[in-house]
Order: sequence, then structure tokens, then C-alpha cells
Amino acid sequence: MSDFELEPRLNADTLSVAELALCSIRLMNDARYPWLVLVPRRTGMVEIFDLDEADQQQLHAEIRRCAEILQDQFKPDKLNIAALGNQVRQLHVHLIARFVDDVAWPDPVWGKLPPLAYGDGARELIETLRAGLTGES
Amino acid sequence: MSDFELEPRLNADTLSVAELALCSIRLMNDARYPWLVLVPRRTGMVEIFDLDEADQQQLHAEIRRCAEILQDQFKPDKLNIAALGNQVRQLHVHLIARFVDDVAWPDPVWGKLPPLAYGDGARELIETLRAGLTGES
Repeated sequence: MSDFELEPRLNADTLSVAELALCSIRLMNDARYPWLVLVPRRTGMVEIFDLDEADQQQLHAEIRRCAEILQDQFKPDKLNIAALGNQVRQLHVHLIARFVDDVAWPDPVWGKLPPLAYGDGARELIETLRAGLTGES
Repeated sequence: MSDFELEPRLNADTLSVAELALCSIRLMNDARYPWLVLVPRRTGMVEIFDLDEADQQQLHAEIRRCAEILQDQFKPDKLNIAALGNQVRQLHVHLIARFVDDVAWPDPVWGKLPPLAYGDGARELIETLRAGLTGES
């Protein structure tokens, strides 16, 4: 979908990790939590069920793949998976590795604390996640 | 799965709506938002990806069915779909009809306000939702 454009706020708040068949995989620029955002590159989508059936299946597969990478890399106590979209309507799915000793636990992460930007620390993490997701290093 | 038991807090916080092939469909007893909770009747599940592939597909189908019912009945501005499980580990999926004029908008609903129990008002809503979900009245 050559006309797809990432919504500006999503673009500003996240860092590019990888492009899978359907989704742009982004890292939320908040070092408090390992937090991926999956954005299907389809224009005009708001709800998961706006996607056609094949894209819904692909989204499910890509969420699972990202979940496996987060579990392998971080061994979280819990995954949080959510499609909210109250603030940014462009369809996106949050996938967050949660720990019983993270700063928001056991509450959801949204709106809890201002994000803590990674700075240079993001580069190595992004490379590791990208390698896991794409099989490339 | 005859040995399945609904986690006590989920049981206390929600009202029974319907039993679909995989999930118990429950209504969160909070009149602030039309809010369904889907609980797969499988023992020991924590993450969506703990379910076998067939159950993951069935869960997806049942989330979609519930989403259609909420959209038909309430015409929400946005659906919120989330599997969190930080407080109750038994796998469950939240499906919440959100409105730009609801009391928590645009924030997520969790932890925002104490629940406002339906009282007698729940009965008619539950019957309507059950009829939509099961085709029975």
C-alpha cells in the first residue's frame, strides 16, 4: 500500500524496528517497558475488524511473532496486548512486556508515567528485536 | 472442559451473558461502559498464545462476534480490545464500547473510576446481548 502513512503521533512516539508482511513494527520510545506497537500498513483502518479476513489472520500471526520475541528476550511476567485507539485512531496494536517490579505494575501502562526516552540505548535493542523478527542481523 | 472454574474475582465483578463454543461471555458490572469480558473455558491458560491454534482462531471469531453485537447495539465511537491479566491471571479478553463522552475518554477505563453496578438495569441488557450472541431470545 504505497499510500500508507504512519500517523504523526505514532511516528513521533515510536522508533522503527522492522517491516513485516502486514505491519510496521515500532518500539515505543519509553525505556520503562519493552513495548512494541504493530501498525498494519493499510490506509483508513480503525478497528481490527476493519481489516479483511486475510489481514486479520496475518495481524494475529505477527502479534504472535512479536510476542515470542518479547518472551524470548525479556522473560516477562505477563504480556499486555491491546487495541485501544482512543487518542490515535489509526489502527495499531500495543504489545507490552510487563514485570511485577515495573513502575506501573499491576496497572496498565497508558497514562501512568511520562515516557522515559531510550536515547542511544535503543539502537542495540532495536537491532536485537529486528534480528529476531526478520531472521536478519 | 468440565474442570474449568471461573476465577473468583472475575466471577464477582461480572455477570453471565452467554456461553459460546469456547468462551464464557460476561458483562462487567459497571454501567459506565458497555463492557464484555470473554473467558476461554480452558484451565491453566494465561496468555492468548497459551491456547492451541484452533482455540486461538475460535477466540478471534468470538471476539469479532461480540464486537459486532456491541457495535450494533451501541454504535460506539471506538472499541477497546485488550488482554492484560496483571491482576487476574486467568486468561480473559476485555471488549469495551467507548464513547467520546464517556467518563474516562480518551483514557483507558481500567482503574479510572470505581465501578457503578447496574442493579436491575442489567437484566434487559443481558437478554439483548444474549439474544444477539446466541440467536435465541
